[in-house]
Amino acid sequence: MEKKKLNVGIIGHRFMGKAHSNAWLKAPLFFDLDAHPILKTACARSEDELSVFAKTWGWESTETDWRKVVEDPEIDIVDISTPTHLHFDMAVAAAENGKHVFCEKPLALSKAQSEEMLRIAESNKVVHYVNHNYRRTPAVMLAKKMIDEGQLGQIYHWRGCYQQDWIVDPEFPLTWQLQKEYAMAGPHWDLNSHSVDLALFLVGPIQEVSCITSHFIKERPLPGVGAKAFTSGSQASAEKGTVTVEDASLMMVRFTNGAVGSFEATRFATGRKNHNTFEIYGSKGSIRFDLERMNELEYFNREDPAELQGFRTIMVTESTHPYLSHWWPPGHIIGYEHAFVHAVADFITAVSKGSSIHPNFEDGVKIMSVLEAALQAAESGSRTSVK
Amino acid sequence: MEKKKLNVGIIGHRFMGKAHSNAWLKAPLFFDLDAHPILKTACARSEDELSVFAKTWGWESTETDWRKVVEDPEIDIVDISTPTHLHFDMAVAAAENGKHVFCEKPLALSKAQSEEMLRIAESNKVVHYVNHNYRRTPAVMLAKKMIDEGQLGQIYHWRGCYQQDWIVDPEFPLTWQLQKEYAMAGPHWDLNSHSVDLALFLVGPIQEVSCITSHFIKERPLPGVGAKAFTSGSQASAEKGTVTVEDASLMMVRFTNGAVGSFEATRFATGRKNHNTFEIYGSKGSIRFDLERMNELEYFNREDPAELQGFRTIMVTESTHPYLSHWWPPGHIIGYEHAFVHAVADFITAVSKGSSIHPNFEDGVKIMSVLEAALQAAESGSRTSVK
Amino acid sequence: MEKKKLNVGIIGHRFMGKAHSNAWLKAPLFFDLDAHPILKTACARSEDELSVFAKTWGWESTETDWRKVVEDPEIDIVDISTPTHLHFDMAVAAAENGKHVFCEKPLALSKAQSEEMLRIAESNKVVHYVNHNYRRTPAVMLAKKMIDEGQLGQIYHWRGCYQQDWIVDPEFPLTWQLQKEYAMAGPHWDLNSHSVDLALFLVGPIQEVSCITSHFIKERPLPGVGAKAFTSGSQASAEKGTVTVEDASLMMVRFTNGAVGSFEATRFATGRKNHNTFEIYGSKGSIRFDLERMNELEYFNREDPAELQGFRTIMVTESTHPYLSHWWPPGHIIGYEHAFVHAVADFITAVSKGSSIHPNFEDGVKIMSVLEAALQAAESGSRTSVK
Amino acid sequence: MEKKKLNVGIIGHRFMGKAHSNAWLKAPLFFDLDAHPILKTACARSEDELSVFAKTWGWESTETDWRKVVEDPEIDIVDISTPTHLHFDMAVAAAENGKHVFCEKPLALSKAQSEEMLRIAESNKVVHYVNHNYRRTPAVMLAKKMIDEGQLGQIYHWRGCYQQDWIVDPEFPLTWQLQKEYAMAGPHWDLNSHSVDLALFLVGPIQEVSCITSHFIKERPLPGVGAKAFTSGSQASAEKGTVTVEDASLMMVRFTNGAVGSFEATRFATGRKNHNTFEIYGSKGSIRFDLERMNELEYFNREDPAELQGFRTIMVTESTHPYLSHWWPPGHIIGYEHAFVHAVADFITAVSKGSSIHPNFEDGVKIMSVLEAALQAAESGSRTSVK
Repeated sequence: MEKKKLNVGIIGHRFMGKAHSNAWLKAPLFFDLDAHPILKTACARSEDELSVFAKTWGWESTETDWRKVVEDPEIDIVDISTPTHLHFDMAVAAAENGKHVFCEKPLALSKAQSEEMLRIAESNKVVHYVNHNYRRTPAVMLAKKMIDEGQLGQIYHWRGCYQQDWIVDPEFPLTWQLQKEYAMAGPHWDLNSHSVDLALFLVGPIQEVSCITSHFIKERPLPGVGAKAFTSGSQASAEKGTVTVEDASLMMVRFTNGAVGSFEATRFATGRKNHNTFEIYGSKGSIRFDLERMNELEYFNREDPAELQGFRTIMVTESTHPYLSHWWPPGHIIGYEHAFVHAVADFITAVSKGSSIHPNFEDGVKIMSVLEAALQAAESGSRTSVK
Repeated sequence: MEKKKLNVGIIGHRFMGKAHSNAWLKAPLFFDLDAHPILKTACARSEDELSVFAKTWGWESTETDWRKVVEDPEIDIVDISTPTHLHFDMAVAAAENGKHVFCEKPLALSKAQSEEMLRIAESNKVVHYVNHNYRRTPAVMLAKKMIDEGQLGQIYHWRGCYQQDWIVDPEFPLTWQLQKEYAMAGPHWDLNSHSVDLALFLVGPIQEVSCITSHFIKERPLPGVGAKAFTSGSQASAEKGTVTVEDASLMMVRFTNGAVGSFEATRFATGRKNHNTFEIYGSKGSIRFDLERMNELEYFNREDPAELQGFRTIMVTESTHPYLSHWWPPGHIIGYEHAFVHAVADFITAVSKGSSIHPNFEDGVKIMSVLEAALQAAESGSRTSVK
Repeated sequence: MEKKKLNVGIIGHRFMGKAHSNAWLKAPLFFDLDAHPILKTACARSEDELSVFAKTWGWESTETDWRKVVEDPEIDIVDISTPTHLHFDMAVAAAENGKHVFCEKPLALSKAQSEEMLRIAESNKVVHYVNHNYRRTPAVMLAKKMIDEGQLGQIYHWRGCYQQDWIVDPEFPLTWQLQKEYAMAGPHWDLNSHSVDLALFLVGPIQEVSCITSHFIKERPLPGVGAKAFTSGSQASAEKGTVTVEDASLMMVRFTNGAVGSFEATRFATGRKNHNTFEIYGSKGSIRFDLERMNELEYFNREDPAELQGFRTIMVTESTHPYLSHWWPPGHIIGYEHAFVHAVADFITAVSKGSSIHPNFEDGVKIMSVLEAALQAAESGSRTSVK
Repeated sequence: MEKKKLNVGIIGHRFMGKAHSNAWLKAPLFFDLDAHPILKTACARSEDELSVFAKTWGWESTETDWRKVVEDPEIDIVDISTPTHLHFDMAVAAAENGKHVFCEKPLALSKAQSEEMLRIAESNKVVHYVNHNYRRTPAVMLAKKMIDEGQLGQIYHWRGCYQQDWIVDPEFPLTWQLQKEYAMAGPHWDLNSHSVDLALFLVGPIQEVSCITSHFIKERPLPGVGAKAFTSGSQASAEKGTVTVEDASLMMVRFTNGAVGSFEATRFATGRKNHNTFEIYGSKGSIRFDLERMNELEYFNREDPAELQGFRTIMVTESTHPYLSHWWPPGHIIGYEHAFVHAVADFITAVSKGSSIHPNFEDGVKIMSVLEAALQAAESGSRTSVK
């Protein structure tokens, strides 16, 4: 019997458009899915770039007006791979049209937007998902399993850190990620949203937060003449504009279960490229994860014989590890893009079964709540409750 | 203008069949190739398994007799993804029929076979390639570039090691890899062939070799009733058979340029999964590679200021690094399968341009020469010249 | 000519008494000092333990009343190796009697005490020193040199962390370190004092601070019958007492130079023994230090050729590295105790030359200022200026 | 009751003289020994240097003729800290005079010398010891304990490697270590002797050996005018002399218990300072040691739950670990010199109790047997039995 087909319409064709397209193509090759995703329509504003993109990835048709995509009766799934400020309108319209929504992170510009997105997605009974993809690395899923099974005992500490260095050069231009109207905030929104997602997933709800932010470089060259604010690769111009988001954001939190946590998100950690790490310390054991070595999970077991205790590096590449039976033999590592494939596979399963998938918009609201409370705390200088 | 199409016929549908299929599909998505590979025909002996395989990966047709594939006038490229003992007949027949040959490693069962394969490929003017895929990790290509540019100076030491542990359990069954008639040798053929390829690529020709091999477990359960010798996953049976290949092989070599080298290949290194490492020490600098952390290259520069010298870990994920501009931003790692994609991309380029690609069958002959001399050295106990 | 002799009187005979005795003995063996320290008098309350201690280490005489030591006209240097709550009285009395003071850290119970200690030490013109020994590891001194020479450029981030796990077991008894009257605070005083010292040394003054503290285990067994509160090794009793200090303390700070920083001090990081680490990120380079691998310093140089950049591990064991010419050849590591030897050597030099040594009581006041402001911030929930 | 005193006479005052003096002084401070070593007489040829040395370390008297030391009736222990070619005469004379002998490694210039040394030491009933100090790092002793308790199961692989780079510079002068008459061989004698000692200790007897050696730089500047061949720090002169030992030596061995092993010793591994590492793989587990991180031992336990297996880094700094109760709390590392202190403590215990200590001259003979067979194998090109 032929599998059910699910028509996907994607909006956005840059970094995330590429990563998502690859995932839609690859998921059915490695996973035995209940339904088959069809790369139906690709949407972007620039017709020329769109045409190349669609041809490369095999999107059957193209469209420059995203509203047509979300309204297209043939489309089952809308994949939102655009800059953050566009998520709200697109997700709301897609849900209102009964489309399942696969939305890139961070979910929106505010908690209020997120709540509205959730409300509309729920009332339209569509599957909704926000793509905090790092949850779906096998190592993070293994960490979740270990915590759920009690192997870490009571958790005392979360220590998250997401460091990059791509704007250390003062001549790096003022791209959309550095402007509040498009991005809401800097690494606080972009990177801390990932870390907070992982903390909520692995440790639990956050109760209160303190925050400081920093603005190291206040003006930057405007992207080259004629270039859109969304173009990052373009030549820098002599004219300068104001950076309206922070360059770094630090948080301290208290979790509902009594654990304390720290977060650090920065684009000024010279030498760190995509250094997303966390450590969790519990009464029975501890773990450490580093995205740049995402096939590994460090684990300390306090119940090992006393003189043989130590942090071990688990190669999370065994077929018994989460997702790994679909890939390669032990020791043959997977990469960044694979977590997207896992997300697509799980999303299709949720759509087929009519079940839910996490993190969804409800999780997105919780993340936004923490991030927003933190921005208030940074402003006021006071510890702030997460509502 | 439409790109030229190249029809591929693949023989073999297991681990390598999967890895190669993925590469044929993925190469044109990430690389702007001169020609487009078409997944034309998949070939295997088991019709049922073949049908699932072909459907999953989109092979247009199937065939259970490999001779029909190599003789099919529509096929441009024959991809040999079978156990080693079949490479010779298939490659020779493919070349004689004018097909370009993409052959899994190790190239053949002997130097003599390899020489014949080379002779026929050359006289038929087909592109020939043996898939020592690890050359095409960005880190190894960066190492090659550094060496060629003189950054390591005169090379003194090669220290290669390829450790696995998948047969430490004495109950692991007698699969084809453990039988001389199918595999010629154990890790010496399977793993040392990779290491020797890397050593020849990075350091240069090998002049003489010493070797010892070891047989730790001499009998193993036969694969379950009715199972073929080629089935590794099947239930072990009570009956036992003799392991006819070594479990570990160590070599010491002298290179033509005066460097000395050591090799170690084993399936009995408990805890090591796919631990393919090498170190190269030169008069100006040194490097170290570990396949399980294949996105990294360690580098020591003796020309750094004296008190600031140290081994640095280069994240080989910058867009200026080999192959990386086709993938993701800095710090977003790639995995095992990506080197296959690079191989396919380069192979298609060679076919399109009528150029050659390395390692080819000539390189394969050189690898076989070293491995074969080593087996003689292991037997005789004497240092042996590589002819 | 015979070297001048400096008579030392030590107060305290436990962990620090041992570490200091070793340093007084060893410094003149490895360093060519201007004066020679004489282990004159050892002081402790328990006569039996004191006698063994003095005999082992060669202290010429013993004394159970510390006031007699600080008043003894033959004593030149008073070494205070006692629990924190005793530092103030002892240091003040020693300075008033014209003795040079080598004081264990943390300096005192409060900023006010520290200021008074400083005032009296200065007005009596004695050399004063607080033993934040980690400054004197060669790697930290190298870091300081690199920063002073501008190799890191403008500093953006400090990320300090001091993790231990010695009280994770709820049955660990209520030793003096867990009682406010003796220790003032928990890891905030004990461990953060070290980290703040390093931050002030390497990055510069701290302007404002936020803090949260956590109390994971609120009651603990009292130390065994008849045991003093100061005995840590003794049998736990059935009776319980209240833990009056925090178990973990997190801080976020802004430095005067614009950098931001985070601190984390805990005794509940299961698996971490003496894990004192810091990372510093600057516009030109970055460094990372880990006390458990104290012979190494990680360094990223943004001015390396782009495709060869990476964090390098400097083995800080070359004779050109700080202090190392006094020890062993490259690659032969030193240990924890050696920083004490360096401190003693530098202290004797300061006494001989009549110069000062850092960190002294003035530095101690600055450290206390940060720690005290942090405790206020933890209490109030508000960012607090460091006065 | 006063402890018995043991008078020590040391011959040699350079690197080893310093390391040994420190150990004789320090052992009684940290270990509760049955007897007390007295630093009685120091002996060296240069009166001026000797006088400084003796004064620094507190040797009570000096002597320039070593024969007087070994004949001195007051001396109980002779410590031989001289270059290798002098060990034989000194050890034989010392033993003949009834002195206990603490001899630096490698034991002698040949197996024949070693056998004679053993014979005479045994017939004179003195305690004899050859200072392969790395056995006495806590991590190596822990490894030994684990192996003896069966935690590694049957051993399959030894992989030892000792890499340095101190003579990579062709202008490094022709010191005694580079001349056969003084050193017998290069890294093969100096470094492989350490590795072979560890292999014999941890894995067991070696049955046969293959070897290749390499001579990268054949001539070097003579040490400066007037300088002795033994002076390494001196100015290089324009005149050159022939290097008469190898620069690198590789071995492959078969152990009596069926394990196979590799050794690599070199002074040309650019970037490696004192990189003495080994890996041991067994049927139940594996370990890895690196002298530059000597407070750590990596351990893989095949009996851990399948999905939680990995190499763990044991911080060998717990008070339950070998020797560690004498030093500092967990996580406070020890250094290179500490293994000498352990050796002295164990040696004094052996002398006091009239027991033996290992490695002794008998172990030294076994080491020499392997090294000598290897040199023959290197010469002949043939696998050679160890007699």
